[in-house]
Amino acid sequence: MASGSSVGRQVNELTTPALLVDLAKVKANCRNMLATCRAMGVSLRAQVKTHKTIEGAELQTGGVKRGLVTSTLGEAEFYANHGFDDILFGFPLIPHHMPRVTALTRRLEKFHVMVDSQLATETLRKTPPPSGKTWSVLLKVDCGNNRAGVWWEDEAGVELAELLSASANITFVGVYVHCGNSYNTKDPRQVEQIRDLTVERVMKFVGRAKERGVTCDTVGIGSTPTCSLPGDKMKNLTELHPGNYTFYDVQQASLGSCTMEDIACCVATRVIGHYPRRNQMLIDCGFLGLTKQGYGNMATGYGVIRGQPNLKLSAMTQEIGFVEPLKGDLDYEQFPINSLLYILPWHACATAAMYSVYHVVEGDTVVQEWRPTRGW
Amino acid sequence: MASGSSVGRQVNELTTPALLVDLAKVKANCRNMLATCRAMGVSLRAQVKTHKTIEGAELQTGGVKRGLVTSTLGEAEFYANHGFDDILFGFPLIPHHMPRVTALTRRLEKFHVMVDSQLATETLRKTPPPSGKTWSVLLKVDCGNNRAGVWWEDEAGVELAELLSASANITFVGVYVHCGNSYNTKDPRQVEQIRDLTVERVMKFVGRAKERGVTCDTVGIGSTPTCSLPGDKMKNLTELHPGNYTFYDVQQASLGSCTMEDIACCVATRVIGHYPRRNQMLIDCGFLGLTKQGYGNMATGYGVIRGQPNLKLSAMTQEIGFVEPLKGDLDYEQFPINSLLYILPWHACATAAMYSVYHVVEGDTVVQEWRPTRGW
Repeated sequence: MASGSSVGRQVNELTTPALLVDLAKVKANCRNMLATCRAMGVSLRAQVKTHKTIEGAELQTGGVKRGLVTSTLGEAEFYANHGFDDILFGFPLIPHHMPRVTALTRRLEKFHVMVDSQLATETLRKTPPPSGKTWSVLLKVDCGNNRAGVWWEDEAGVELAELLSASANITFVGVYVHCGNSYNTKDPRQVEQIRDLTVERVMKFVGRAKERGVTCDTVGIGSTPTCSLPGDKMKNLTELHPGNYTFYDVQQASLGSCTMEDIACCVATRVIGHYPRRNQMLIDCGFLGLTKQGYGNMATGYGVIRGQPNLKLSAMTQEIGFVEPLKGDLDYEQFPINSLLYILPWHACATAAMYSVYHVVEGDTVVQEWRPTRGW
Repeated sequence: MASGSSVGRQVNELTTPALLVDLAKVKANCRNMLATCRAMGVSLRAQVKTHKTIEGAELQTGGVKRGLVTSTLGEAEFYANHGFDDILFGFPLIPHHMPRVTALTRRLEKFHVMVDSQLATETLRKTPPPSGKTWSVLLKVDCGNNRAGVWWEDEAGVELAELLSASANITFVGVYVHCGNSYNTKDPRQVEQIRDLTVERVMKFVGRAKERGVTCDTVGIGSTPTCSLPGDKMKNLTELHPGNYTFYDVQQASLGSCTMEDIACCVATRVIGHYPRRNQMLIDCGFLGLTKQGYGNMATGYGVIRGQPNLKLSAMTQEIGFVEPLKGDLDYEQFPINSLLYILPWHACATAAMYSVYHVVEGDTVVQEWRPTRGW
């Protein structure tokens, strides 16, 4: 990458491909989700995995820098290093995590882990927490997503809650659910059905735990599709933990979570060549600038080229994208070599992870640079 | 990522997912390709885009640190910063590249660019090179790959060679071809056909250029499949420029470029949970640890789990992979939570790009850390 800050530069001066973040849009997306949660009387625990930046998490938390969920320990450490607190490592705990979990428990006011196994529970029970602390633990419950979590109907899940709750060195905080099955839907009505079913199931689990004397102070569910289509049943919860809504993407627009205009990030790319023999042009965004995710879901190929509904991103190699018209002949005069195009990604979490810097823009001017953490 | 060097540690101490590079295998792969080129009397210009590391490029060049081709300007600058020279920026030149191309031309003994358009040619012709230098230029020729390059049969291509050759501020070096169409094959015989057809076509182009008094001192073709199955016709060339062979991958093994045992990199991942209700387990390698490339090409899903032919990596979210047996019930005792599995990637170039450090191993011991460059 060319060195030096890009702040103050125009987009057409940037090295491409470049990830652009529209500051007004990301602010609006963050403000809207905070307002949604406030209106329902639930907390927002901001999932940071989409952007992995300090600035993004500040917007998500309304500036208080408290209340995050991360998908890696590396993210948790990054935010701890930058003054954030009340952080949940939202990933199934395994024994290998314990040294870093111990260090985070020691240094933060509130650091929480998530468990869904007997092994993780026993590991915590037998490991002394740092002096003056307990392990702060959420039980992951699977309410139909079929990924991590104890199955909501199984007695073994409630028994694990009981065991955690009864352990002297553990503070059992409550239950957490990811309703990622909302992504496997065809329309907003189905998203709402999954949202309501998830809430019903987790509340039944909480009720069964209560019958055994186990209190769940925190009951959280997350996923951007469900949290972007909130419903009254969610008022039974205490917190939501979506993440993708910061940027949104074409996938979210297709699910009804947002409009195409709400998408706050895009990839700027340049035309690098005209190939009239095969009615194509090439751009300098290949799979390292976008990822190959999403192909097959869009008539326009690997992404949506903003403002160009007749263009299809039909193939990608490492650094090169192939663009062709959906219909007719490509009008090369409209797309000179060296000129810019802007690709809206299918999956912003995947695309953003390909960049070591995000160029945050107001109009065509770069006003900030955000540098995400990466790795594990 | 946990801080501190991993050199001297055992693989089972590493944070997962982790990219492991088998030092003996990467050395053998590099040695073999150098030997192939030597045997045919052609040079090897090492494509570095797969690994993007200093150490990998040293092995590729047999320690001389001369003769690279890069896929980005960022890579060219990285290698220039680390004492490499004779570097080709192997990407279609556009006017936006000129400031950085000028700086590289100034600082390196030999820096080459690749053009395939009238615009790039005119840009070079009208731009004064640094004092005492000329622009060193290769013409990209398309011999059937249908990506960048002038089409080998077109008169416009030969005319461009003539124009470059006649320009006082340009040193026309020759022609370059990428036969990436070798990837769209079903067996080694088809790879060999593409290899030979590519050589025939580029030599015809060179012959037509010669008729116009244009000499191509360099005639290069590349792609790991064709260079891994070298044939006598290649002796007509002056250089080869493959890259993926450093690591190889499942795709290359499926094309006949290598055996599965030659694959020099894999992703180490841990089992994080058992879900007998659905005959699955989860691992801590999601798409950020592997990418989603390759799905549909392997019976085993998104990758090949080394030594476990009955395991399928059937789905991936950002940080989690879903593993299930191809047949029968999963034997959970064989895969305890916290234990390691090793995934051979479909496409090593894509997978390696997800990592900021490679753990280079001899057996189970980390002996080196390689840190790739990234970005553009």
